[in-house]
Amino acid sequence: MIDPVHLTQALLRADSVTPARGTVFDVLEAALVPIGFAVDRFVVGAAPDGPVENLLATRGDGPRHLAFAGHVDVVPPGEGWTGSPWSGEVRGGLLYGRGAVDMKGAVAAFVAAASRSDADKGTLSLIITGDEEGPATYGTVALMERMAARGIVPELCLVGEPTSTERLGDMVKIGRRGSVNIWIDVPGRQGHVAYPHLADNPIPRLIAVLAEIETVVLDEGTDWFQPSNIEVTDITVGNPAHNVIPAHASARLSIRFNDRHRGDDLITRIRKIADRHAPGAVVTGKVSGEAFLTEPGAFSTLLSEAIVAATGVTPALSTTGGTSDARFLSKLCPVVEFGLINATMHKVDEAVAVEDLRTLADIYADVIERALR
Amino acid sequence: MIDPVHLTQALLRADSVTPARGTVFDVLEAALVPIGFAVDRFVVGAAPDGPVENLLATRGDGPRHLAFAGHVDVVPPGEGWTGSPWSGEVRGGLLYGRGAVDMKGAVAAFVAAASRSDADKGTLSLIITGDEEGPATYGTVALMERMAARGIVPELCLVGEPTSTERLGDMVKIGRRGSVNIWIDVPGRQGHVAYPHLADNPIPRLIAVLAEIETVVLDEGTDWFQPSNIEVTDITVGNPAHNVIPAHASARLSIRFNDRHRGDDLITRIRKIADRHAPGAVVTGKVSGEAFLTEPGAFSTLLSEAIVAATGVTPALSTTGGTSDARFLSKLCPVVEFGLINATMHKVDEAVAVEDLRTLADIYADVIERALR
Ligand SMILES: [Zn+2]
Ligand SMILES: [Zn+2]
Repeated sequence: MIDPVHLTQALLRADSVTPARGTVFDVLEAALVPIGFAVDRFVVGAAPDGPVENLLATRGDGPRHLAFAGHVDVVPPGEGWTGSPWSGEVRGGLLYGRGAVDMKGAVAAFVAAASRSDADKGTLSLIITGDEEGPATYGTVALMERMAARGIVPELCLVGEPTSTERLGDMVKIGRRGSVNIWIDVPGRQGHVAYPHLADNPIPRLIAVLAEIETVVLDEGTDWFQPSNIEVTDITVGNPAHNVIPAHASARLSIRFNDRHRGDDLITRIRKIADRHAPGAVVTGKVSGEAFLTEPGAFSTLLSEAIVAATGVTPALSTTGGTSDARFLSKLCPVVEFGLINATMHKVDEAVAVEDLRTLADIYADVIERALR
Repeated sequence: MIDPVHLTQALLRADSVTPARGTVFDVLEAALVPIGFAVDRFVVGAAPDGPVENLLATRGDGPRHLAFAGHVDVVPPGEGWTGSPWSGEVRGGLLYGRGAVDMKGAVAAFVAAASRSDADKGTLSLIITGDEEGPATYGTVALMERMAARGIVPELCLVGEPTSTERLGDMVKIGRRGSVNIWIDVPGRQGHVAYPHLADNPIPRLIAVLAEIETVVLDEGTDWFQPSNIEVTDITVGNPAHNVIPAHASARLSIRFNDRHRGDDLITRIRKIADRHAPGAVVTGKVSGEAFLTEPGAFSTLLSEAIVAATGVTPALSTTGGTSDARFLSKLCPVVEFGLINATMHKVDEAVAVEDLRTLADIYADVIERALR
């Protein structure tokens, strides 16, 4: 049986800043093969978003099929760590390292859980990418193409992102909001402020567009989602000359939306507002992910029961926070997310409590047991 | 008698990009002394706005006192001239050179006019700065201090800026709008767009401030002034991160205002609007000049008559355009502005028609005659 702490340490000692390839996958493969997994590693993509390494591991051929999804790439450690971000050292019951909670610890916990379960019972898959923290162009999406090509179709998918907030087990994610960025560029005609009739200031039109956008209420929230939210994140004019009327004014919006909306519809809606106040404005958008919801049901109940059994904590079922690769996987099968406490993720001195790591392995083992029963 | 074309050429051949000192003043002094002017040159100020040379010339002690104000500094010539910007050459009836119309030509025309007039009749002053095109910190303001110290108080002041537009004589300025720049900075608290409740986006408040400013009508204009005008000339957030709510948002306004307003009052008014929609916003302003008006009367009539006599053109009395040093001089006595056609000022291949230069000298001579009568 694999020890989740030792495996986490081995994974942490492999520097795997996104996009990740090589050593960190060697470590993972070396753990999976002895416990019966067939490991399929492949490298895809080219600069600037690649190349990226991905790993697909499968074991068993029973009718029930649980997949675990995660990533072994990490965000850059940054400056100011107490020790080395790649040391994997334990101090005061905490295991330190970039990726300890997001999410090498959870990957190790799941492998440890799998090492305890009966290899003949159902099918287990691991869907592990080296690019979740980067543009994700060649990460989970490429893994899903590989799975489709090989006919691998899980029934349930557990994503091991760090969803817990205060205590291990206090939060499970059953959905995520969608995310779209929208750019509004209003053209005008440059000129001197002393002769405004010879110029055409685009700023008043942009202000009118943004003032109406500020009044938009997308929705009041749903049973499972908080209200969709529009933030104006930037305005750019870039006019250093005090006596010049500028030729362009632009703004950028970030909309986080629930399952009442689709990204393209929101772009169209913003474009209509822009057209009304600023004819000729150019509105472009980029949808980074649609909203998804795994309605509470058998899968979330099974997970909640495993969490309660190990911790005594009843998890909240939440859809808050940023996006995750679950937005892709939700197209395959019901997806829920559960993992470690996220307090130190992406921060200096990222660390996981050794005890939480062991408890998480227990919970994951129970989930495997219940899902493949 | 001095030839205005030759004197303009001599002035143009002295490179005098702002702030000006030395040679260009030597040329001017050499013209003024032989025709009876007492010349007082002085250098004031230190970097970055100085040192600047100024020249104050006076002749006569009769009770009537006409002053002529102008500048011999020029804006940089820039690239692309057909000949040298410092050649002072005549081609096809046009005299070329940086400063030909703005405003070495007018200075030369006034000196030529003075050379024709009776030195015993009234008092003539020349108030000539080397810094009108620059920050003007040590230019006309320093000259006025010098005049005050020496007890020199003109009755009337003619500023020789190029006010004509299509034909020499078609426009006289009897006032100028004031100008104030105002900066509005709205502070907020940075955060992630997925957690807007933990952040405080300053952009919606800035939009509300600007939206109200866009509704402000300062006035409908007056008999002599067009309506005061507010332009939002820049908005700066400077947030490159798509998923980050920014910590600051700021805007810059340029207000050109008529004599119904004072710069400080406008700053206060904008500050009140900002306080209403964005408590904590920091509003700062810089008044570059107050509005002034020399009500049409004896002085403008005298000038108009001289223009009509020489050209047959009846000048429009205007207050349009940017600011000029007349904004300072208007504190001393009635000020009007009249000079060459401004079509090529500050442009490549700046040039004055030789004939206009001679006609301008005639007009200025007639003005001296009428003013000191
Ligand atoms: Zn992660
Ligand atoms: Zn000028």
